[in-house]
Amino acid sequence: MNKIDRLLSMLVCLAFIELLEGVWPLPQTFTSSIERSPLSPEAFYFEYGSQSAAQQGCSVLDAAFTRYFPLIFPDYTGEVAERLLLDLKGAASPLAKVPVTTTIPSQWGLIHYLTRFYCIPDNLSVSARQASLNAETVWGALRGLETFSQLVYQDDFGSYFVNKTEIVDFPRFQFRGILLDTSRHYLPVKTILQTLDAMAYSKFNVFHWHIVDDPSFPYQSRTYPDLSSKGAFHPMTHIYTQSDVRRVISHARLWGIRVLPEFDSPGHTASWGKGQSDLLTPCYRGSSLSGTFGPVNPVLPSTYQFMARLFKEVSSVFPDSHIHLGGDEVNFSCWSSNPDIRAFMKKMGFGVDFTKLEAFYMENIVNITSALNKTAIVWQDVFDYHELIPKDTVLHIWKGTPASYQAELSRMTKAGMKVLLAAPWYINHISYGQDWHQYYNVQPLDFPGTEEQKKLVIGGEVCMWGEYVDATNLTPRLWPRASAAAERLWSDEKQTSSADKAFPRFQDLRCKLVRRGIRAEPLYVGHCKHEYQGV
Amino acid sequence: MNKIDRLLSMLVCLAFIELLEGVWPLPQTFTSSIERSPLSPEAFYFEYGSQSAAQQGCSVLDAAFTRYFPLIFPDYTGEVAERLLLDLKGAASPLAKVPVTTTIPSQWGLIHYLTRFYCIPDNLSVSARQASLNAETVWGALRGLETFSQLVYQDDFGSYFVNKTEIVDFPRFQFRGILLDTSRHYLPVKTILQTLDAMAYSKFNVFHWHIVDDPSFPYQSRTYPDLSSKGAFHPMTHIYTQSDVRRVISHARLWGIRVLPEFDSPGHTASWGKGQSDLLTPCYRGSSLSGTFGPVNPVLPSTYQFMARLFKEVSSVFPDSHIHLGGDEVNFSCWSSNPDIRAFMKKMGFGVDFTKLEAFYMENIVNITSALNKTAIVWQDVFDYHELIPKDTVLHIWKGTPASYQAELSRMTKAGMKVLLAAPWYINHISYGQDWHQYYNVQPLDFPGTEEQKKLVIGGEVCMWGEYVDATNLTPRLWPRASAAAERLWSDEKQTSSADKAFPRFQDLRCKLVRRGIRAEPLYVGHCKHEYQGV
Repeated sequence: MNKIDRLLSMLVCLAFIELLEGVWPLPQTFTSSIERSPLSPEAFYFEYGSQSAAQQGCSVLDAAFTRYFPLIFPDYTGEVAERLLLDLKGAASPLAKVPVTTTIPSQWGLIHYLTRFYCIPDNLSVSARQASLNAETVWGALRGLETFSQLVYQDDFGSYFVNKTEIVDFPRFQFRGILLDTSRHYLPVKTILQTLDAMAYSKFNVFHWHIVDDPSFPYQSRTYPDLSSKGAFHPMTHIYTQSDVRRVISHARLWGIRVLPEFDSPGHTASWGKGQSDLLTPCYRGSSLSGTFGPVNPVLPSTYQFMARLFKEVSSVFPDSHIHLGGDEVNFSCWSSNPDIRAFMKKMGFGVDFTKLEAFYMENIVNITSALNKTAIVWQDVFDYHELIPKDTVLHIWKGTPASYQAELSRMTKAGMKVLLAAPWYINHISYGQDWHQYYNVQPLDFPGTEEQKKLVIGGEVCMWGEYVDATNLTPRLWPRASAAAERLWSDEKQTSSADKAFPRFQDLRCKLVRRGIRAEPLYVGHCKHEYQGV
Repeated sequence: MNKIDRLLSMLVCLAFIELLEGVWPLPQTFTSSIERSPLSPEAFYFEYGSQSAAQQGCSVLDAAFTRYFPLIFPDYTGEVAERLLLDLKGAASPLAKVPVTTTIPSQWGLIHYLTRFYCIPDNLSVSARQASLNAETVWGALRGLETFSQLVYQDDFGSYFVNKTEIVDFPRFQFRGILLDTSRHYLPVKTILQTLDAMAYSKFNVFHWHIVDDPSFPYQSRTYPDLSSKGAFHPMTHIYTQSDVRRVISHARLWGIRVLPEFDSPGHTASWGKGQSDLLTPCYRGSSLSGTFGPVNPVLPSTYQFMARLFKEVSSVFPDSHIHLGGDEVNFSCWSSNPDIRAFMKKMGFGVDFTKLEAFYMENIVNITSALNKTAIVWQDVFDYHELIPKDTVLHIWKGTPASYQAELSRMTKAGMKVLLAAPWYINHISYGQDWHQYYNVQPLDFPGTEEQKKLVIGGEVCMWGEYVDATNLTPRLWPRASAAAERLWSDEKQTSSADKAFPRFQDLRCKLVRRGIRAEPLYVGHCKHEYQGV
């Protein structure tokens, strides 16, 4: 083999390796070749395309350009760059810039964000000496920047390259969420912010903040400060202040992530009762008070006055168009022990069917938030009890095996309701071995129903409930396991039908996450070029 | 209730809480009262008792005194101390010093360490204004310092206290080990050092370093540098240099922890073959070479020459009296495919019983290390195949259910062999929920046998195999789960028979670990006063 042959064969081999690695989640259409351009961190930049609706001053893209530079050139320093520039002398002309063009006129504030929060098709094209990224909205441009950052690689000498590539991409589902539970364990703001970063790396776009629950109430309310001062694990160190919340929302926005708050009621509210008297139902043992409390008391007008004021605040603090109202796992034993509740049931003609009482309660809460211009999301229990809920309510499936959640999908979409699927992605449940396969192999639309019904499945959510999770172990439990679901929610199902085929690309993603400072755990025996170096 | 009564009741209540928290693992005898002494970080010090065999200049205790000060006073700074001193005015006289006395004449070098590596009874006494710690050896004194550090607590105002306490303590088992696997994934030295710190917090005293295996050979040998330059994941970034190994051993020694190296053969050696030709058995497909390799080739004299030189080096690098030789999971299919091996079998009269060939190989390796004055530890397979091994060899049980490892314990100790139990503590196997119960509820001596037999069980080991573990997730998987086994190996079984009873003390340990910078994961819903603040 002569020298040129050997060079060519090396090139092909190298390119082959890089193609294998590629992008996670897999783009919808992806054409790549072995032709490649060097990139010099000394000279490379993003710019706004001349025809772009977004231009300098667009906070989201300005920040993204700055943020992605070190992600693309992770070991860049002045000295290294010099060496790279020397290496590039006589090589193919480097790719110097990527113009980013968005087509939808810019309203960079929250209004735009609220009305068009879904990522829409974007187009990324890299050829020998030029590249361009076109997207409808800035949010699509963010996803394209992530894709581009994953296309850049380093050769064995540390030089940066990108292969000639054509990508047209868009998400399969509009809602790609992760739930964090900050009630069972408190998560420091820093931990939440880092999780948002990692979410964007896998193109998740909704942070479902299950902010309060039975064990603690860390949300510091302006209207009801006692809720956290008495209901949090600690009134100073284990709370989210108004500025903490603003910081989370603004960080998320810059990454193109919505923050969906959940204030779950009438169950899961034990901690609420510590700072708000007469809110929870007093339980009875026989004819006397037992001293314990049950779910929110649905028969007192004061309950709804309290909820109206609380949700008015929450609606103004969290700008998202949706709000999660919970409604799951209401235990009826305390309600049924209470004579006032029983009297109310009788008056309303509910008989002994407490699901009617829960439906009555949820209807009131949905009306409250609806008047505040928020669309409600509720856990599936609410539909299971009471199918006659406002048509725009989104139902959230969390229970059961594939067989049972498929039946539920069918039933809900048949009733014309929008649905979110969480049941197969309860990622807090851990087991030994490569359990990401089970998250990857979910087929969200594999249920009996028409095309119209399938369109009502707006997305899915990875839930990390907090019983056994706090800042010590959140990151390695979440990553890269959650990213398996991310690909299912973004990519074409036919192109991503094999976990085995995805494995090397998934391992590569995991190493990229580690390189970016995310403590993503290993998938199996092996190593990353750049290992996690902390303790 | 008058003021004094209320004060007393508060005191009793406080003391009760602190007693509940206490020490992990539970000391053998522990008498505590609500009487307490304040401790001032401004004035507190350890000193050598006047009658102590160890005196200033004893490297192990000098370093331990320095190390334990910030562990005992975690938020001490000059400013805080001033406040504390002010608070103490008019309070009970503070406890100012703890004299530490050891009785065995000091030979602080490695010789002493090698011959008496077990922790032996120590005695800790704290009363109103004086405290003392008496131990036979410096290693016992280290354990006593750990106990003392766990006795000190802060009240709600941040002041430090220790209750009047009498402790006589000693470990139930001499060998309390943790295995880390640095072949399936490389662990940075920093990660190993932090693990050693955390081990000492739970009174573990043996670091079993499963340093090489099939996937990689990170040990950089002086004699055979190719083993790591070709067999490690990377010849520079994924190796342990001689100074790395020295650093681990010296750090471990200062914490009273032995480093037991394992060079597992003849199986689990794929990575060895990359840097040492003719070491592994060439496998055949029919009558021709298949191109793959099996276990170490036991029929070539060059194999034993290689092993003798390697183990000579290893024996000098690792000062411990013991060496782990592996011997597990030998796959016979490659051996049986190889005509040279079959010919050797015939010559030796082994028939087709390859266990005889393995026994022959292990006998040779044990003889090599025995000539180097090392006592061998081998996995149970070696005994299962071949009961006639040198009487001083320690057998290491790793297989099976309680029923099967109990039978093995019985059989081995009946044969007069010393035994180590690892089977119930394969902590790399994770499952959802409070799985520490199963590690806590192990009864290592619950097998049919005489008192003499029971004495042959020298201890146990927590194994963290590396298939799914590296520096990203090691710490939260190991802690505090491993500490459940630590209590089983240290404490009296009768006093520690209930996991439920141990739970609050275990939760307290977990929070102490977090306070000390160890990312120990939560046991269940709740919080620590000082949460992990990193990301």
